[in-house]
Amino acid sequence: MIRINDNFKALKPAYLFADIARRVNRFQKENPEADIIRLGIGDVTRSLPGACIKAFHRGVDDLGEEALFRGYGPENGYEFLREKIALNDFRNRGADIAADEIFVSDGSKCDTGNFQELFAGDTVVAIPDPVYPVYLDTNIMAGRGENIVFLEARADNGFIPSLPDRKVDLIYLCFPNNPTGATATFDQLKTWVDFAAAQKALILFDAAYEAFIRDPELPRSIYEIPGARQVAVEFRSFSKTAGFTGTRCAYTVVPKDCMARDGNGEAVSLHPLWIRRQSTKFNGVSYPVQRAAEAVYTDEGRTQVNERIDRYLSNARMVCNAMDELGLPYAGGNNSPYIWINGNGRDSWGFFDLLLRQAGIVCTPGVGFGPCGEGYIRISAFNSPENVETAMARIRQVLR
Amino acid sequence: MIRINDNFKALKPAYLFADIARRVNRFQKENPEADIIRLGIGDVTRSLPGACIKAFHRGVDDLGEEALFRGYGPENGYEFLREKIALNDFRNRGADIAADEIFVSDGSKCDTGNFQELFAGDTVVAIPDPVYPVYLDTNIMAGRGENIVFLEARADNGFIPSLPDRKVDLIYLCFPNNPTGATATFDQLKTWVDFAAAQKALILFDAAYEAFIRDPELPRSIYEIPGARQVAVEFRSFSKTAGFTGTRCAYTVVPKDCMARDGNGEAVSLHPLWIRRQSTKFNGVSYPVQRAAEAVYTDEGRTQVNERIDRYLSNARMVCNAMDELGLPYAGGNNSPYIWINGNGRDSWGFFDLLLRQAGIVCTPGVGFGPCGEGYIRISAFNSPENVETAMARIRQVLR
Repeated sequence: MIRINDNFKALKPAYLFADIARRVNRFQKENPEADIIRLGIGDVTRSLPGACIKAFHRGVDDLGEEALFRGYGPENGYEFLREKIALNDFRNRGADIAADEIFVSDGSKCDTGNFQELFAGDTVVAIPDPVYPVYLDTNIMAGRGENIVFLEARADNGFIPSLPDRKVDLIYLCFPNNPTGATATFDQLKTWVDFAAAQKALILFDAAYEAFIRDPELPRSIYEIPGARQVAVEFRSFSKTAGFTGTRCAYTVVPKDCMARDGNGEAVSLHPLWIRRQSTKFNGVSYPVQRAAEAVYTDEGRTQVNERIDRYLSNARMVCNAMDELGLPYAGGNNSPYIWINGNGRDSWGFFDLLLRQAGIVCTPGVGFGPCGEGYIRISAFNSPENVETAMARIRQVLR
Repeated sequence: MIRINDNFKALKPAYLFADIARRVNRFQKENPEADIIRLGIGDVTRSLPGACIKAFHRGVDDLGEEALFRGYGPENGYEFLREKIALNDFRNRGADIAADEIFVSDGSKCDTGNFQELFAGDTVVAIPDPVYPVYLDTNIMAGRGENIVFLEARADNGFIPSLPDRKVDLIYLCFPNNPTGATATFDQLKTWVDFAAAQKALILFDAAYEAFIRDPELPRSIYEIPGARQVAVEFRSFSKTAGFTGTRCAYTVVPKDCMARDGNGEAVSLHPLWIRRQSTKFNGVSYPVQRAAEAVYTDEGRTQVNERIDRYLSNARMVCNAMDELGLPYAGGNNSPYIWINGNGRDSWGFFDLLLRQAGIVCTPGVGFGPCGEGYIRISAFNSPENVETAMARIRQVLR
């Protein structure tokens, strides 16, 4: 008799965005003429950079020519892309990462979700609160629901969680943070790297929003911290950088000297383990998509990507300015596309409903990201400048 | 202290294709002028159909236009593609499958590898021998290495495994088969569907090579068998159908009335469970790739796909003819791109070495797919007609 993995029953229903959609639909039905502006979901709105579009087309053309046709590619991605990633995203920034330590994938959601497969069932997992739900849900599915240590991110610690006061094995960190928009300094990341080294723990570092960092003092990769190669895996994505949310390309960095232990206490390198996992369960990223991603590293691509990030960052500044005027405390919005706004005593859903019903603005209620998010909303800068400007004018009107 | 999933240590090293590559490289080094013809790996060689290329380009153009841009798509695939799949691949063939029972993915390797996550750790798994290694390896990774029942496929059962003589929960079947090329009749599949229903077991049916079926009597989907909706999940791919091995698109069918039990013995539908898994760990297939796949269902696309399959099937016939002449027993080659050849007493690697060193032909040694493959080699029809013709002439010379 086929029986299900009962751990799935321990998952909370994925109600957050469904609940938001229901409330928005009800409001739209009651107010058919309302012009709703969506600042909720973290999806890009700008088109793919022209350099990527051109390279994408050329990749498609290759598939149409027998002589240039590509069938199965390397599971870890084409060297033409991995070389450029290693050079531009790491070595040029002083982080010592080789091309064969890069694993190209179809998304950071998959990678951050799948990486826990490499570890023992009884691994104790440290997960921030509030948090991108994938880290938590995938560990619950794997039967670690009772082994979670929450790392609280609140205003009083500047949304940088303190070190846990108990032993943990696997630590999820995300900077610039989703949902709080907080960024970590070199010293803050170093504290975590040193902690992981001392505990023989592993950090899974989600840097999906790295491209939004403009402050030259802030580390963009955890590998800028000495010793991180031994204790950290990093996840990066072209989604928010170059608008690849619908195009699908990301990558994971697994340094060869990043180690765990087997049941006998012997050190095991994670690099061949991840190769084995990926070559067994994954078949590589679409060839033309990899060509499109490669174009991000051309001069033209870089300029176009920066233009896009600039625009989103300028949207984020508009949101911050409005909050400053209204005297609402917030985090993020600087080196980050997210602004994490405190409702000054309003609960998350109450604040959400107020903005929806009185300003026609959709945000994300902070409590949807975990208990520490109660009292907050997340506003995303992924929209047109015109829409963000209109949205902020309406919010000023309502909250003034 | 971070500890690994020790089940990874129970995996056999993935040596097969590495071992083949080593032998081929050594031979090429010793015989630099040798013209090696590769009939080993199951990768397509023809370009993507023109209809797909055109649709692919249009999809890329959409991503370059702000007004048509697509960000995150539905995790289960765009409706435009799911509707066409449900209609053309199922309902038009009398199999009752709805569009919302289709889950578009980036590959059948991922889907056949991931689907076992839905089931209890102590699930007893029936796996054919010889077999595509993903079914076995992913279950070993999940800790089911001691719970495997092998279903032997040999000449004396026509390479259609007999029902197991013990209770099993999860059954992997693949027809047309990789590696044997065997196909299953309606009655043979019905035996399995009835068995699964009686045992409350689940069949994972891999139909990646369905497009090679030309015999109108053979079922192309397990859902042509009455009762299959309740006991079977089917995996399909555009890889071998339309040459998408480097483009990446596939789909999985999970009927809403396909059930398993939870720990309390309550019936649980697998459909919402797979939605939960995919929406947590997957972010959908690249939009232009889905547009390219959609074009497979146009008149032009269908014609071009059939042309490609015709060519590979004609290659397969050339191989069968050569084996008939040489008096070597084989399976497959008919309704299948694979020919599973018995070496008449030679062991698999001996036969492999003979063909490599004396004919310059690369095949796959059957024993690499499991112990029942010993004494066989697999020849793949995925090459140009010219190369297959030359290869068969050389084989005739050597084995005559």
